[in-house]
Amino acid sequence: MVPRYSRPEMAAIWSPEARYKIWFEIEALAAEAMGDLGTIPAEAAALIRAKGGPRAAAISDADLARIDEIERETRHDVIAFLTWLGEGIGPEARFMHQGLTSSDVLDTCLSVQLARAADLLLADLDALLAALKRRAIEHKLTPTIGRSHGIHAEPTTFGLKLAGHYAEFSRNRARLAVAREEIATCAISGAVGTFAAVDPKVEEFVAQKLGLAVEPVSTQVIPRDRHAAFFATLAVIASGIERLATEVRHLQRSEVREAEEYFHPGQKGSSAMPHKRNPVLSENLTGLARLVRGYALPALENVALWHERDISHSSVERVIGPDATIALDFALFRLTGMIDKLTVYPERMNANLESLGGVAHSQKVLLALTQAGLSREGAYRAVQRAAMATWTALGSDDARTFRDNLLLDAEVSEKFDAATIDQIIDPQRDFRHVDTIFQRVFG
Amino acid sequence: MVPRYSRPEMAAIWSPEARYKIWFEIEALAAEAMGDLGTIPAEAAALIRAKGGPRAAAISDADLARIDEIERETRHDVIAFLTWLGEGIGPEARFMHQGLTSSDVLDTCLSVQLARAADLLLADLDALLAALKRRAIEHKLTPTIGRSHGIHAEPTTFGLKLAGHYAEFSRNRARLAVAREEIATCAISGAVGTFAAVDPKVEEFVAQKLGLAVEPVSTQVIPRDRHAAFFATLAVIASGIERLATEVRHLQRSEVREAEEYFHPGQKGSSAMPHKRNPVLSENLTGLARLVRGYALPALENVALWHERDISHSSVERVIGPDATIALDFALFRLTGMIDKLTVYPERMNANLESLGGVAHSQKVLLALTQAGLSREGAYRAVQRAAMATWTALGSDDARTFRDNLLLDAEVSEKFDAATIDQIIDPQRDFRHVDTIFQRVFG
Amino acid sequence: MVPRYSRPEMAAIWSPEARYKIWFEIEALAAEAMGDLGTIPAEAAALIRAKGGPRAAAISDADLARIDEIERETRHDVIAFLTWLGEGIGPEARFMHQGLTSSDVLDTCLSVQLARAADLLLADLDALLAALKRRAIEHKLTPTIGRSHGIHAEPTTFGLKLAGHYAEFSRNRARLAVAREEIATCAISGAVGTFAAVDPKVEEFVAQKLGLAVEPVSTQVIPRDRHAAFFATLAVIASGIERLATEVRHLQRSEVREAEEYFHPGQKGSSAMPHKRNPVLSENLTGLARLVRGYALPALENVALWHERDISHSSVERVIGPDATIALDFALFRLTGMIDKLTVYPERMNANLESLGGVAHSQKVLLALTQAGLSREGAYRAVQRAAMATWTALGSDDARTFRDNLLLDAEVSEKFDAATIDQIIDPQRDFRHVDTIFQRVFG
Amino acid sequence: MVPRYSRPEMAAIWSPEARYKIWFEIEALAAEAMGDLGTIPAEAAALIRAKGGPRAAAISDADLARIDEIERETRHDVIAFLTWLGEGIGPEARFMHQGLTSSDVLDTCLSVQLARAADLLLADLDALLAALKRRAIEHKLTPTIGRSHGIHAEPTTFGLKLAGHYAEFSRNRARLAVAREEIATCAISGAVGTFAAVDPKVEEFVAQKLGLAVEPVSTQVIPRDRHAAFFATLAVIASGIERLATEVRHLQRSEVREAEEYFHPGQKGSSAMPHKRNPVLSENLTGLARLVRGYALPALENVALWHERDISHSSVERVIGPDATIALDFALFRLTGMIDKLTVYPERMNANLESLGGVAHSQKVLLALTQAGLSREGAYRAVQRAAMATWTALGSDDARTFRDNLLLDAEVSEKFDAATIDQIIDPQRDFRHVDTIFQRVFG
Repeated sequence: MVPRYSRPEMAAIWSPEARYKIWFEIEALAAEAMGDLGTIPAEAAALIRAKGGPRAAAISDADLARIDEIERETRHDVIAFLTWLGEGIGPEARFMHQGLTSSDVLDTCLSVQLARAADLLLADLDALLAALKRRAIEHKLTPTIGRSHGIHAEPTTFGLKLAGHYAEFSRNRARLAVAREEIATCAISGAVGTFAAVDPKVEEFVAQKLGLAVEPVSTQVIPRDRHAAFFATLAVIASGIERLATEVRHLQRSEVREAEEYFHPGQKGSSAMPHKRNPVLSENLTGLARLVRGYALPALENVALWHERDISHSSVERVIGPDATIALDFALFRLTGMIDKLTVYPERMNANLESLGGVAHSQKVLLALTQAGLSREGAYRAVQRAAMATWTALGSDDARTFRDNLLLDAEVSEKFDAATIDQIIDPQRDFRHVDTIFQRVFG
Repeated sequence: MVPRYSRPEMAAIWSPEARYKIWFEIEALAAEAMGDLGTIPAEAAALIRAKGGPRAAAISDADLARIDEIERETRHDVIAFLTWLGEGIGPEARFMHQGLTSSDVLDTCLSVQLARAADLLLADLDALLAALKRRAIEHKLTPTIGRSHGIHAEPTTFGLKLAGHYAEFSRNRARLAVAREEIATCAISGAVGTFAAVDPKVEEFVAQKLGLAVEPVSTQVIPRDRHAAFFATLAVIASGIERLATEVRHLQRSEVREAEEYFHPGQKGSSAMPHKRNPVLSENLTGLARLVRGYALPALENVALWHERDISHSSVERVIGPDATIALDFALFRLTGMIDKLTVYPERMNANLESLGGVAHSQKVLLALTQAGLSREGAYRAVQRAAMATWTALGSDDARTFRDNLLLDAEVSEKFDAATIDQIIDPQRDFRHVDTIFQRVFG
Repeated sequence: MVPRYSRPEMAAIWSPEARYKIWFEIEALAAEAMGDLGTIPAEAAALIRAKGGPRAAAISDADLARIDEIERETRHDVIAFLTWLGEGIGPEARFMHQGLTSSDVLDTCLSVQLARAADLLLADLDALLAALKRRAIEHKLTPTIGRSHGIHAEPTTFGLKLAGHYAEFSRNRARLAVAREEIATCAISGAVGTFAAVDPKVEEFVAQKLGLAVEPVSTQVIPRDRHAAFFATLAVIASGIERLATEVRHLQRSEVREAEEYFHPGQKGSSAMPHKRNPVLSENLTGLARLVRGYALPALENVALWHERDISHSSVERVIGPDATIALDFALFRLTGMIDKLTVYPERMNANLESLGGVAHSQKVLLALTQAGLSREGAYRAVQRAAMATWTALGSDDARTFRDNLLLDAEVSEKFDAATIDQIIDPQRDFRHVDTIFQRVFG
Repeated sequence: MVPRYSRPEMAAIWSPEARYKIWFEIEALAAEAMGDLGTIPAEAAALIRAKGGPRAAAISDADLARIDEIERETRHDVIAFLTWLGEGIGPEARFMHQGLTSSDVLDTCLSVQLARAADLLLADLDALLAALKRRAIEHKLTPTIGRSHGIHAEPTTFGLKLAGHYAEFSRNRARLAVAREEIATCAISGAVGTFAAVDPKVEEFVAQKLGLAVEPVSTQVIPRDRHAAFFATLAVIASGIERLATEVRHLQRSEVREAEEYFHPGQKGSSAMPHKRNPVLSENLTGLARLVRGYALPALENVALWHERDISHSSVERVIGPDATIALDFALFRLTGMIDKLTVYPERMNANLESLGGVAHSQKVLLALTQAGLSREGAYRAVQRAAMATWTALGSDDARTFRDNLLLDAEVSEKFDAATIDQIIDPQRDFRHVDTIFQRVFG
């Protein structure tokens, strides 16, 4: 991922140094288990740990270059690493990797990396949830117009909007927790997964030490449906980011101006137009969401490997492993900051709410008319008549509120007087159940 | 979905008749709840049930045409249905749909349909799992060559292959069960989800009667992350189908011929080549998997609806709702039949296993040599030497087995005599842990 | 595709009857070519045409059932058709399909169908282009605010907006014309494309009669990169539909109301809210665009068939062939009607244009200040100062226009008096080059 | 893109230095055009070129850091660059960027970068085409079995296989050439594309100097359907790479062994199994193809920007611009080397061709029987009988060739004697038209 969209902690998970440290740990733990089982000399295992540990911990640029050099010769990354590691261990190095296949190391390492990445993403989600909750409670009763189809519908509150996103990200958190468990498995099962040359107890030991589950049955590799489900989950989360970003982009539109991303002192909105304050963060998040969605596809295509494995998944994962997790980490962090500092304009929300002459209350009148004996169709026609009259004249000299148009309507005024209508369209009635919903969402 | 890939039970879920029955049920239940709450007359609710129930249950082609006719006038499907339904109920029909918005009906209906579809798919998966388990146990110890990169690796058993797919489909079953729960929610919350004109108790009542959970916070709609997660799960399952189908396609290759799809008496493989027996079922499954994967994308794009909802998701779901579930149901059923009847050729498996002169045993010799004191690199070179000599001469007059080439190698023969080598490469050693793996998978 | 999104002419291309007629035509033409070449008796070719032609032309439901019955036995669709056709021809039927393979018939038929579908889509695009051109010219100088990031930028005209979409759909038309040529090839080359049993002259003859090009080298099939490019082109076109639909959805927002989809007398916007007029057509188009995009993916995965072909592409194409072309045809037709009847509100455009106190003219002042000697940074700061003052006070009691705030600014007023500023921000200057652009687009 | 899959020449196109040099060139050319038109002093334009040119040409890490620093303050990348550039030019810097908007610079720069990237990719394709042509001609008449469904069909030649891929990559080259033209446009049209503050002649001048076409109508940006078509074309090419890679993977399978990727001295196929030689290049290419396909999706979603533009496309393009072109460049280069050095085993091809007892000749017998008077169905049954008998007994003691089984068949032997059958199944007949096909493909 380009540096612009990378945060250091997530990027570090995917560095060569981090990878090689995990590889060493897997090899050292496997040797220790084999030492315990007597498959290899226990002293050899101890020596691998004693000499290899510091070597792996202090891996330098020169070491990385040396490993690359060996790989250019052998064209095999794990052999290159083992050769380099062995150079610092001596003859006992031959007891490393006994009965293992490269994928045992590579796939278990990827599990560790994805689990760590998921942990960062879970923490990101927790921070986002906290920000959403705080702003939701702050604006629990801030009235704003609810919109369907981009058209004014009925009043809601800004807090309810945020509560909806909070609930969605809670679900996303739960999905990611499941996906993390799914991906956190360990396979040390040998060339085709039969444990022909390595005891299953080795796998159990390594898994336990690394905090992973044992892969019940591997081929040469950990099956890729786990990874597909993981990246598909990231795509669902990214789509949730896009939904919230789209909401903010809409609210910041010039004609709406109900909320605005924080505009830094010194910030310039446009090189040409000094008046501009643009929702660039949420637009950026929209694009990042598209990227993360795009990364799910090759992960899904990776599932159908040939026989006990082919290596077509590898190039995909070398790229989307870091790219998808780094982009999502960055996006969640950016979104959290954006929500945290979002400037909200309750007075603009109110102005918009009132701007269409009160037609947003049409349903309440419709229901009251049917209760008063009109057929649904008759009531609908009467209310639509008054609403359209209000709408059409908006801004003109003979503009009239929905309420007044209702009173002018023969069919309506036969049923209701002005006081009754005012009671029917009382906006407080709209928010009676906000507490119930908040209770459901925030407990 | 085209009839060729549709099974009646799944297709029936998506018929107009089924949809209208569910719509009626939602309206009737909502009316009953409102009758209990006193929002509308209890008698009206009873009448809606009494007159509307039989009308919805016996919906005819003429009724469908009448609803379409009203929709052409009103350009609104739910209003069209309600108008038609009301024609059979009379004036009390005005007490239907009080405080509801169309999406309350549409989205809750979609939840019911997707939950039913998921139940069929879960049953499909159970049948597939049973078939896989039966064949896995049957071939638990049928030796076959394991392959990585399409190249012979080490021996495994055909039962182990199937056990791996069983484990994957078990995970897929668990994923689908979660996705089904996620999608099975009910929203009866009004125009923008505030319950402004309908009591939350109505939602609770309808949800409970329909076996759904209550949607904690809806906007106008049930949030689409639920549906995105659902269709993404179908895509993961489809990819698992493709993996198993790809395995069968490989096994049936002319050069491999280790297994074959059942060939019906009377079946013709080719219009031009009478000798052909093609793996057409698994090829067909590969294509269906691509389709189901493709359907996940628009579902992911549906998440970011505008504000409290826009209706862009609707056309997508009218198509992929049926298409993805029907295609997956068909694919799972076809796959189950294919596995059930798969012709397995153990003798061909054995012939292939032996065909490369025994190089598949190279790792065991490598390990024994390192245990005997050679460095890993030295042992690797010695074994590769013998393996390459075997490989290169395959089929030629001076072909020699891997075992014999090992004995000819100075470095190897210095460590091991013929008897030791035979012990090292004894194939029985490969299957020592099959029981352990089967225990893990099948319990 | 569901009937709701199908138009009869496009759907007819994909009917079984249409397919069988094309199959017959291919077989009959091939037989005629072989008759000419003397490969089969010329009389047999004549008989195939004479007896088979009417049979294929008058194919009935009973015939379709009979073909299905034979297919259930043979599990091969082309053989089933040939058997049925032969039942009406007699012994000479054995001279049909000589040296052909099923794919010769299936793939050439698909080429004919896709070419016909493309012709309908090209006509759809022509109609859309005509509508866009008419409305663009009508509103060539209708001023409206241009928006970047959803924020007011500078004035443009509504005609220019439409001209941009016209230009995009012109490109889409050109792309589709190329894709149509790419897909319109004929292969009659036998089992693996070697012409082992059929003369290349047969292919040339059939191609020429059907208006197709000869496929230079086929395997058993026409290579699927052609189809992938075709469906990818449909996805690009669909994305263009989404762009225009998104524009209309924005313009119809309650706060914007610059344009509106035609609202039919009798139409109901909402079952609950009689005041609603929603941009349902453009929302629907947004969803259809997602579907068509989704169909491109399996087409891309279809390219990598195994060896001389596998049949995994077939199930994909049976579905996306009709679904993608029918959905796009429907979408283009709907979009054309929507543009044709779009209600445009120039007075609302003007009101919005003026609503931000004239900050949209900031760049012109910026440039004038730099021309007058200020540094770019200094000029930027001065103009941003006035713009932000205008923006912040919008709607408040001490609201002031951008022009007036500029005059109050010491640094600006030192350079310019009121008359100069009025000249600088004269809106007529914005439209000086509209003619140039229209000339470029419409010629 | 990760370094492992990056080649320096393509990566260089996307470096910050390269980008800033293009930005400068656009600004300098625009200033020169404005100097000629008298919009700004000609001396200022000369000074911008004289002082800015060397500054941009020698951009250092310290400069990059300085630009980043300004961007952190202004949060605007183009302003940051202009400020830094201006620091080296002096007061006349204020005449840069007059009437331009950032997108004029950014989008025109992206056009230059994508056009350069396309030029490299076209050169890659030329090299690949040359390699394919050379190997195709080399193996023009190397017999090999053609396979459909993975099952032996009829003989073809290895040269014909490669000719098919050559033809596909020729089409891909043509597609890329079109996509390159489409993307190579220049927009210098100001804030909303109206040329309100910049003369269209400036755009014409800059376009001409940069070798770009003029964008007929831009909004603020160059319309993104051009980029969508570009990245979709890369996806089609990538899928063609996958098809050829899949062919090689199949040919290298242990049971097939008809061709093999070059195995370097010193290369190690497996850390565990010294006998392994794996088709790792073509597997790698398969994964890279998935990545490039995945990048097309966000490009398609980028088309529907809001109004005159939103900036959601930007983050997408910052990533997929380099990633898709770099990955494809690497893949094409790798594929070319792989084809160039591919080890082909004609003797294995022949052995496989003969391995099924000659059933691959079944169609020729079928046709001869129908010519000899049998009905198609009767002939089919007779030939299938002999083919199945051959197939079933393969490898058993009573194995018999297809030819011999035909002679044993009463119905067949009534028509043909041994000599006739030998003539019918003469393999030379299969290759009669290879010249014709080569003529079509290579001219």
